Amino acid sequence: MSKLLIVGTVAFDAIETPFGKTDKILGGAATYIGLSASHFNVDSAVVSIVGEDFPNQYLDLLQKNNIDIEGIEVVKGGKTFFWSGKYHNDLNSRDTLETQLNVLADFNPVVPESYKDAEFVMLGNLHPLVQLSVLEQVKEPKLTVLDTMNFWMDNALEDLMKVIAKVDVITINDEEARQLSGEYSLVKAARKIEEMGPKYVVIKKGEHGALLFHKDDIFFAPALPLEEVFDPTGAGDTFAGGFIGYLARTGDVSFENMKSAIIYGSNLASFCVEKFGTERMQALTQSQLNERLAEFKKLTKFETQLD
Amino acid sequence: MSKLLIVGTVAFDAIETPFGKTDKILGGAATYIGLSASHFNVDSAVVSIVGEDFPNQYLDLLQKNNIDIEGIEVVKGGKTFFWSGKYHNDLNSRDTLETQLNVLADFNPVVPESYKDAEFVMLGNLHPLVQLSVLEQVKEPKLTVLDTMNFWMDNALEDLMKVIAKVDVITINDEEARQLSGEYSLVKAARKIEEMGPKYVVIKKGEHGALLFHKDDIFFAPALPLEEVFDPTGAGDTFAGGFIGYLARTGDVSFENMKSAIIYGSNLASFCVEKFGTERMQALTQSQLNERLAEFKKLTKFETQLD
Repeated sequence: MSKLLIVGTVAFDAIETPFGKTDKILGGAATYIGLSASHFNVDSAVVSIVGEDFPNQYLDLLQKNNIDIEGIEVVKGGKTFFWSGKYHNDLNSRDTLETQLNVLADFNPVVPESYKDAEFVMLGNLHPLVQLSVLEQVKEPKLTVLDTMNFWMDNALEDLMKVIAKVDVITINDEEARQLSGEYSLVKAARKIEEMGPKYVVIKKGEHGALLFHKDDIFFAPALPLEEVFDPTGAGDTFAGGFIGYLARTGDVSFENMKSAIIYGSNLASFCVEKFGTERMQALTQSQLNERLAEFKKLTKFETQLD
Repeated sequence: MSKLLIVGTVAFDAIETPFGKTDKILGGAATYIGLSASHFNVDSAVVSIVGEDFPNQYLDLLQKNNIDIEGIEVVKGGKTFFWSGKYHNDLNSRDTLETQLNVLADFNPVVPESYKDAEFVMLGNLHPLVQLSVLEQVKEPKLTVLDTMNFWMDNALEDLMKVIAKVDVITINDEEARQLSGEYSLVKAARKIEEMGPKYVVIKKGEHGALLFHKDDIFFAPALPLEEVFDPTGAGDTFAGGFIGYLARTGDVSFENMKSAIIYGSNLASFCVEKFGTERMQALTQSQLNERLAEFKKLTKFETQLD
């Protein structure tokens, strides 16, 4: 069985959507990635940092989902990273109301000894130097996946480019792909980003699905058309967790297999947005996942009469 | 062989995109629909109106593509409908610079005797009362498809609702579906629009593909990721022409077959945007269409290892 190493935030979120608002709840990229990947029964570990205020029940929750938490540093007297945001009515855009870096300001990631030989490494959204440090601690991973966002393009581009040069796969959204490449066409953008390092480029388009690029090959995974999106927080991380979780489980990093990995990522993300925070992910069953996989297949399958 | 009746504008367009601009060139919804549907070798006729200034070479072009032009009224001393527009840099939005209704202001459509028994009727974007008049002149069509836009929702909603109540299929874009239904979720929007009359709702999302709804069934056709979009003018009409052209050719109006019809619509539209106006559509060959159909199949096909 492959090992999956995940680095990213474990955090408190306070979320406001047109449907309601939450107090401080469990959040963070590594949390969503870990919960999503846990559906593939791979051995996974999270490298992160929290404060003394972080409830044990949240750490227990991660452990119960077979996530090794040895790499989550708990800082005595420290406070956990906190983000609060408010989504606009269309749920496609949001304003950040508050960001408290807290313990994240001095995060020096330490990969547990038992995960230095992890075959799969997921670098969740964080400062690129932290991502780089994790990459330097692992031996010879079979596949490294980088998730990042426009904030680092604006504020730490040089460091970000160093990480981008070292990973196999990058996942970013369409606007970020355009910003990073300077190309409006996503086909051209992906080609330019491949030249920066990654052999595979995944462009996330939210409710419009996701594209996987590799040389001249393109695969498109739709998002499931949903009656209601309740809270988009964590959807991108959940997508990434499903993607790498499926790859780690199957151990197959071919382009063909990445197609299914993207579908699983979309599948898991379609659940994530149905409730606030990680609520839906915690209640998700294997049979629900399988049912929705069948819906994904039906959604795009066709047979023409004129071939 | 089924007959296809098309009503819509035959017009002059002057187009400006970031890549250049045109003088007055051939345009109009019925023109694009007709050229697109002509790839399926169905007997088709266009009902429209032009002025004396409309060049014979354009009428010849339609005829050469097996489009019956008996229903195109040429008004002596009249001037042809003219539209000019300028696309923004992202090509997703445009400003209308000028609209001259000209002969279109008094258009009283007359369906040729030989097309009153048409099995397939495509109501291209026009005043809903004109569309209604065409519907009243045909006997018992097997399938009627309505294309419309927000302009009529803003300015002739009552008339529009009458046409919507009478057709089998409606094709509109995502923003228009939201406006018409008052629902943000496209799943909910489609359900509400079905209650207005059409049994099938097609929602066009431009570069993000198209959705087909029928009761609880949903099908999604991706747009082909293109390196370059040169001029989006006519893409929606070309999509509609491909959709109804394929259905008329196969004579099969089942949901299953509509899936392929949507793929053909997307396929044809992907060519339309490659050059200014109708230029690419005029040069399009059957083998190019078939090659791209194969690309559409590759784009979304996947096999998972965990079923």
